[in-house]
Amino acid sequence: MKALIKPDAGPGLELAEVPVPRPGAGEVLIKVFAGGICGTDLHIYTWDAWARSRIVPPRIVGHEFCGTVAEVAPGVTGLSPGDFISGEGHVACGRCHACRTGAPHICERLAVIGIDRDGAFAEYVAMPAANAWKIDPSISRDVAAIMDPLGNAVHAALEAPLVARRVAIIGCGPIGLMAIAICHLAGAVFVAATDVSETRLALARRMGADLVVDARREDVVARIREATSGEGVDVVLEMSGSERGLADGLGALRNGGWVSVLGLPAADVRIDLANGVIFKGAHLAGIFGRKLWQTWEQGTALLRNGLDVTPVITHRLPLERFEDAFELLRSGTAGKVILYL
Amino acid sequence: MKALIKPDAGPGLELAEVPVPRPGAGEVLIKVFAGGICGTDLHIYTWDAWARSRIVPPRIVGHEFCGTVAEVAPGVTGLSPGDFISGEGHVACGRCHACRTGAPHICERLAVIGIDRDGAFAEYVAMPAANAWKIDPSISRDVAAIMDPLGNAVHAALEAPLVARRVAIIGCGPIGLMAIAICHLAGAVFVAATDVSETRLALARRMGADLVVDARREDVVARIREATSGEGVDVVLEMSGSERGLADGLGALRNGGWVSVLGLPAADVRIDLANGVIFKGAHLAGIFGRKLWQTWEQGTALLRNGLDVTPVITHRLPLERFEDAFELLRSGTAGKVILYL
Amino acid sequence: MKALIKPDAGPGLELAEVPVPRPGAGEVLIKVFAGGICGTDLHIYTWDAWARSRIVPPRIVGHEFCGTVAEVAPGVTGLSPGDFISGEGHVACGRCHACRTGAPHICERLAVIGIDRDGAFAEYVAMPAANAWKIDPSISRDVAAIMDPLGNAVHAALEAPLVARRVAIIGCGPIGLMAIAICHLAGAVFVAATDVSETRLALARRMGADLVVDARREDVVARIREATSGEGVDVVLEMSGSERGLADGLGALRNGGWVSVLGLPAADVRIDLANGVIFKGAHLAGIFGRKLWQTWEQGTALLRNGLDVTPVITHRLPLERFEDAFELLRSGTAGKVILYL
Amino acid sequence: MKALIKPDAGPGLELAEVPVPRPGAGEVLIKVFAGGICGTDLHIYTWDAWARSRIVPPRIVGHEFCGTVAEVAPGVTGLSPGDFISGEGHVACGRCHACRTGAPHICERLAVIGIDRDGAFAEYVAMPAANAWKIDPSISRDVAAIMDPLGNAVHAALEAPLVARRVAIIGCGPIGLMAIAICHLAGAVFVAATDVSETRLALARRMGADLVVDARREDVVARIREATSGEGVDVVLEMSGSERGLADGLGALRNGGWVSVLGLPAADVRIDLANGVIFKGAHLAGIFGRKLWQTWEQGTALLRNGLDVTPVITHRLPLERFEDAFELLRSGTAGKVILYL
Repeated sequence: MKALIKPDAGPGLELAEVPVPRPGAGEVLIKVFAGGICGTDLHIYTWDAWARSRIVPPRIVGHEFCGTVAEVAPGVTGLSPGDFISGEGHVACGRCHACRTGAPHICERLAVIGIDRDGAFAEYVAMPAANAWKIDPSISRDVAAIMDPLGNAVHAALEAPLVARRVAIIGCGPIGLMAIAICHLAGAVFVAATDVSETRLALARRMGADLVVDARREDVVARIREATSGEGVDVVLEMSGSERGLADGLGALRNGGWVSVLGLPAADVRIDLANGVIFKGAHLAGIFGRKLWQTWEQGTALLRNGLDVTPVITHRLPLERFEDAFELLRSGTAGKVILYL
Repeated sequence: MKALIKPDAGPGLELAEVPVPRPGAGEVLIKVFAGGICGTDLHIYTWDAWARSRIVPPRIVGHEFCGTVAEVAPGVTGLSPGDFISGEGHVACGRCHACRTGAPHICERLAVIGIDRDGAFAEYVAMPAANAWKIDPSISRDVAAIMDPLGNAVHAALEAPLVARRVAIIGCGPIGLMAIAICHLAGAVFVAATDVSETRLALARRMGADLVVDARREDVVARIREATSGEGVDVVLEMSGSERGLADGLGALRNGGWVSVLGLPAADVRIDLANGVIFKGAHLAGIFGRKLWQTWEQGTALLRNGLDVTPVITHRLPLERFEDAFELLRSGTAGKVILYL
Repeated sequence: MKALIKPDAGPGLELAEVPVPRPGAGEVLIKVFAGGICGTDLHIYTWDAWARSRIVPPRIVGHEFCGTVAEVAPGVTGLSPGDFISGEGHVACGRCHACRTGAPHICERLAVIGIDRDGAFAEYVAMPAANAWKIDPSISRDVAAIMDPLGNAVHAALEAPLVARRVAIIGCGPIGLMAIAICHLAGAVFVAATDVSETRLALARRMGADLVVDARREDVVARIREATSGEGVDVVLEMSGSERGLADGLGALRNGGWVSVLGLPAADVRIDLANGVIFKGAHLAGIFGRKLWQTWEQGTALLRNGLDVTPVITHRLPLERFEDAFELLRSGTAGKVILYL
Repeated sequence: MKALIKPDAGPGLELAEVPVPRPGAGEVLIKVFAGGICGTDLHIYTWDAWARSRIVPPRIVGHEFCGTVAEVAPGVTGLSPGDFISGEGHVACGRCHACRTGAPHICERLAVIGIDRDGAFAEYVAMPAANAWKIDPSISRDVAAIMDPLGNAVHAALEAPLVARRVAIIGCGPIGLMAIAICHLAGAVFVAATDVSETRLALARRMGADLVVDARREDVVARIREATSGEGVDVVLEMSGSERGLADGLGALRNGGWVSVLGLPAADVRIDLANGVIFKGAHLAGIFGRKLWQTWEQGTALLRNGLDVTPVITHRLPLERFEDAFELLRSGTAGKVILYL
């Protein structure tokens, strides 16, 4: 089969012909339809410090995807060939403290598809049956392909109550953009969104942000406070991974507020703990992956109830044009880019 | 009356003769017995940047104290002359969002006794009746004088469930020391304590810490992980206000863990958000002051039920010896120092 | 001034001429515009067992109302003559455990306007300044008059997270009807509503219920399970106060579900604790009054954000026609009935 | 092997010779050391309405037990022959909503060992590997045999914060008795216990109850209020399953209090919802089984930290004397009765 692989230690990826994987015990084989490119894939592509420390080539990449069940290992129940599924990329061990207490999304021995085991930018991918989320065929392939980042947005947004509250979303990558619509559906009465890219700010407006702030040219804290009678927001979703973004979020936060921290900084960040967190009695919650399987239930229910994330998908390309796809992502002018098998 | 005052802009304090204050509407006048010196008082004494930005001399200092009600303004109910009380130093506005939603400890217009209004290192102090917490005369004057920092310890410790869990307390000033005993009473099955002072580490042992780590000479994370089968702790109480302390706490924290952040850093701190917070799904909660009045109820109940914080009180001096008292505090060789009127 | 009073022990009410009240210390005098009739008022009107045990005539009735501040007692801040306000009918003592720990809505010494002290079906009412919630003049007098029951609906609905969840509202009096719209705004993906009155079921449809069940003629549990793939609902709002309603709600509830219990039964109710609560791991929460002041902030924010409760108001009558108004309420053919001064 | 079985529909049990079971896929075979008799076993013994509706004979009974792993099915990891384990009796399906959202203890398709599948009053029992909780050999066989009901006590007690709070335990069967010690370890400052049996009240005293009330002869609510300055308790653990017990608990409960409802009533119970739940803003939580696996972690940590439940074990008998054991249980004069293989 064809597959997008990191062939050896170094920048770039390669479209290669590799054997179809065999599903192991408790696994299923998925015929992949489409996959979304994640920021993580870009790290692997450019072969940065993190990628060098984590990826052992050769490795098939890709962890956001949808497809149909092609084969089911003996003893697996609840899935049949032909089922339409979206993939959960995090494989939990099932036996650590986190797994045994309802938090497998922060499993202490987590393995990630497309990183620690072969991924889904390929005609077929094998994975644990539990990681295949069966979905309604009414959900489009495009959306099914990005239920992983949609889940990140759902997880980050719904950790704190939003009804009748005001929210600031710092950083409008695909996850931040999807979070705008999710916050409104969850009852938020005001959603501000900030970014440094014109394209993304335009998408934020389209996703329904009540206030859009260009962090390059405007004073984010001042704009948000001005729009909230000086009071600030109740909830911040930090999705920029930047020191400045975090500072802006904490500056715009009301006393007693909540910050979901999802954006991964490339290095340590400086933070004004005294004024930003302690005096405010603020809560910061690290958000990683998707709650298994609450987030998936919530995401599915919201999609069925009218959540529309399609504006976030700006480009659809065949797998063969992966170079163009990664270039689009790198330029900051794209929302979500989907590769088709 | 005699009072310890900051007479004008500059280092040091002065014992002066000043008029007895008059209780305003809704206020009471307290005859002060004793007061505890707080790190904040040391900032005012040394006249550092924070003190210069906040204190308008002349100002009577001191906000940890106990005494008896000497006079009650007309219309005040629930307090009578002679009542034994401990003072809550934070005066909330009662009308902001935080005050109206059950969180006056993070009032947006907070005024602090001994900082923004005259304090309690004096024969008398006037303050809102609501800030006088009536206590059982069975509680000693020494302990009654430090129910404010005891409340900080209670607030920080009890924000997360502790029963059957493991805790690390980073920083063994008086608040950290008191927290050791509180964590054990709350059901913690393991309490580690770290500091950089020999005196304080010895006090930590005396307060019942299961593991005491000298952060100057030992690898805090390694020692705590070693003592917890490699798993780390469920809860961290960050009471050092140091960048290194926070890093140690996050390093010792289990996935899904909780960090109460109380120690005020002197400047911004660097933090490894990705590994310390996000991948762990950790919660960081800023802790400020005492929950009004849940913390006071809890502290009182624990004292009645056997909580003993007297080992933390290492020095008792008459007000006249305030210079010695501040010197002790500055040297790092004292626990809590109490001044007697 | 004219006022609707319970003149003495016995059924009925009387429109009487009484002196304008004087605001006491900390109070304001309100010029009343309009008031909503509550089920409680009907109990007082008919003089049932509860009313006989609680009301000491003569008493001016009415506790749902709006008006403008006419006079402010000395020392009261934050309110001025002319301010448009809606009244909170529950006067908390401010000193009990509940009041001191952020839960004054369940004050242990609660006094209710129109029940324990003179009420608002009168040209003027005096009450504590804290009980006057200043509102935007953009909110209509009709809606401002019923922010008390709207608050009950907000309180009951928002106690549990609703986003991406399914809800059943048992009982479609005005509070249940308003809750339908609130649940949808809070992100509920399915809202079923049940009642025994044709008028109310029609109003439930108009308020946006996804499923409307006539509890006299249909099997409530079966209908709700059928509409939820057999799974039942995540949240039940029990607003009927009937034994049958509670049983229906528990029957329709999913394992691990939440029940907000607001409807006041006239007597003890039988409940299947084993199957309805214990085996399900269900949570039942008693809902009384409005959280002070979180509920008011939430209700105001939702109204500003488009919450429309006007369909619930079916009748508007001058105070003089109070007999007709109570008759309408008694007949079960009305939604909310408003009396105009 | 020998096994205690319900041979056919009718009262009584029989000691029989049956084949050793074979562990299926994902299962282990346990060599049983000892088992505790549960109230449920007594229902099966007496063949009451519930037993008739649920049990399909022949069935080996018993679900509280400990033993060692004798055999491990292929593919099972984390357990080896010789491991000392305590059995979790509830087998969750792993695929329903409850199982997928961290609440397998309220699985919608739960199967119970000794009820829906063969149990542990036998030389060997086969069960899913996940249901075998590996324990420290330092824990005695007696205690290891009753970690199931200990888990019920832990689950019920720790659902609400207990530190600095007051608790009433209604019903002093083995679970209630163990809860007394757990509440104290969790920081409760007052624990009242009620029952109708002299033996059990004496055990309650021995387990450390601060107040012991004989519900046959004393006014439970009055006694508890008297002991709590009239304020009542913050938390009630309802473990009697009796209508009167629930009424006593609600009567003793403070506004805003919490009730863990574990005791299974034999029929519907009457409850004063208005005064007991609604006006109080009380929370009632149904408690069933043990949280998987948080409760097990907590129970194990508490045992290691000094929790002593051995006084609750009043009788130890060989399996052959099962008739005497059931008689002891029926008489109400025993605490926990353990059968030895």
